Amino acid sequence: MIKIAVDGMGGDYAPAVVVSGAESVARDKIAEIVLVGNEDAIRPLLKDSNGIEVIHTPVFVEMKESPSSALRKKRESSINKALELLKSGKVQAVVTAGNSGAAMAFAIFTLGRIGYVDRPAIATLHPNTRNSISILLDAGGNVDCKPIHLAQFAVMGDAFARCVLGVERPKIGLLSNGEEETKGNELTREAHALIKGLDLNYIGYVEGTDMHNGRADVVVSDGFVGNVALKITEGVAESLMVFFKDAIKKNLKARMGHLLMKEVFDELKGKMDPSEYGGAPLLGVDGVCIICHGKSDEKAIRNAVLLAKRFVENGLNESIKETLWQVTDQYKG
Amino acid sequence: MIKIAVDGMGGDYAPAVVVSGAESVARDKIAEIVLVGNEDAIRPLLKDSNGIEVIHTPVFVEMKESPSSALRKKRESSINKALELLKSGKVQAVVTAGNSGAAMAFAIFTLGRIGYVDRPAIATLHPNTRNSISILLDAGGNVDCKPIHLAQFAVMGDAFARCVLGVERPKIGLLSNGEEETKGNELTREAHALIKGLDLNYIGYVEGTDMHNGRADVVVSDGFVGNVALKITEGVAESLMVFFKDAIKKNLKARMGHLLMKEVFDELKGKMDPSEYGGAPLLGVDGVCIICHGKSDEKAIRNAVLLAKRFVENGLNESIKETLWQVTDQYKG
Repeated sequence: MIKIAVDGMGGDYAPAVVVSGAESVARDKIAEIVLVGNEDAIRPLLKDSNGIEVIHTPVFVEMKESPSSALRKKRESSINKALELLKSGKVQAVVTAGNSGAAMAFAIFTLGRIGYVDRPAIATLHPNTRNSISILLDAGGNVDCKPIHLAQFAVMGDAFARCVLGVERPKIGLLSNGEEETKGNELTREAHALIKGLDLNYIGYVEGTDMHNGRADVVVSDGFVGNVALKITEGVAESLMVFFKDAIKKNLKARMGHLLMKEVFDELKGKMDPSEYGGAPLLGVDGVCIICHGKSDEKAIRNAVLLAKRFVENGLNESIKETLWQVTDQYKG
Repeated sequence: MIKIAVDGMGGDYAPAVVVSGAESVARDKIAEIVLVGNEDAIRPLLKDSNGIEVIHTPVFVEMKESPSSALRKKRESSINKALELLKSGKVQAVVTAGNSGAAMAFAIFTLGRIGYVDRPAIATLHPNTRNSISILLDAGGNVDCKPIHLAQFAVMGDAFARCVLGVERPKIGLLSNGEEETKGNELTREAHALIKGLDLNYIGYVEGTDMHNGRADVVVSDGFVGNVALKITEGVAESLMVFFKDAIKKNLKARMGHLLMKEVFDELKGKMDPSEYGGAPLLGVDGVCIICHGKSDEKAIRNAVLLAKRFVENGLNESIKETLWQVTDQYKG
């Protein structure tokens, strides 16, 4: 069975939700789990250790700690210990709900990068109105990017959509302020020229709306813009829910209506729930690493393990390796 | 009475909706209107010309035309003719639902900029969950910005929130990928240092979510990021509505619930409707100019005229002039 290391100390509700997520995965024989973290905190929470191993380390990275400081001082942290297990082949993937910047920094440091990848990226999954999923990358790993980085994100996103989501010829879009070629900023204009020359189903510039209407399977942007996009998506959805809650409080008829629409609202909540997709894969590092939302619950941890498993089984990293060389050649030529 | 020039040819549904919007404004004696555009197209639509003057020009800027080409070839266009009326003092404001890039280019060309403004910005209005309105700027005018531009946007946004929305000491946030000072990209880090030194109620970095939860009254960003933010906001809201529509189609109980919740959904639609706020003011040009969404309807045109009127009456541009000098001093010092 596949063996996955889970950062026992990562996330706002760790270690409790991480332990129960791990138990749920081990119970259903989805994967064997190695929980890495403070044994004194983890053991008492562990009701059923069947299929679960605990590896002790008292050090962990705080959620607000800067990645560079963690990298300097916390080599013994739970996240890095988990990544070292992966590097040495003792597990096949790592899942963490901890500090995402630190996870990325340690992943690059400990695992290294695949072939020609300059900047690994965080990919997030978003349901769209075509009843499928759009991928956004980079969702926050790299705030200042060069055009070549965006081109590499495009290739990695393509591989991801093909291997893990099963889209045959994914439509790749570059996030911009308008669809016309005259739009964009300095960065996107150069990236556009680069990506156009690649062997991808590149549809050109896409707008913010296209992340949700499914016009693109993969939406490429730098990590600053991607992170803003991600959080606005969460923000709009949350504020709509607040609106409904307030409206229902004030109005009996609406409350009855809401009861009748309960299934619909539940389905919507499920769709909007980041835990539904488990987490965001870190693409471009030499190993499978899934970063979950800091607010992850048991279900998110479980789904992240499922996603990691799919990654490993579908050979995503091999596919990235096979296609990414073209970006570098393109750049040098 | 205040006199406002409306670009009769601007917008996807021009001149029809523009004419009826103008009629509605004139009928209620909100303002006298000068409709600028092709008289042959406008006159036949005009049922009641009371309080409405038509100034003929056959030229207009296409929605997809590049601003630089328009600037070169279309000085006689309806939008520029309207701006010339403003420049010469024949009207007090201009409203257009036409090509926003061209409107901005002509506004700078014909009206000039206020005092120390380097880059005029487009400000959009967004309802938030605190039952008030947050301002986003720049929403698309300037894709490549320097830190000083963002600092100027902050000052202009502050003046806007004080003068037009009546917020006493507006909370100003800089849109970033996280709240911590260590976050941000090269541009925002330098802008953050600049804005901190200004006499503003600056709350530091804000995230995408804060545009909708009301933590900030004014959200500052470059025009590329701002435009992506704006369109994602529209996109999420639209995709949620598609979701509800589909769900209701499939499910009788949900359909009944939806009927009972009709008022709530209508209120929500109203809140999300860009026409509710009329349009986006162009801040920093020497004159009041409101740019409406290309898809504007009659109500949007009417509300844009109301917003323009409020601008003129509250002396927004004087307030910008009075406070903006500090940004330039700060920069030089």
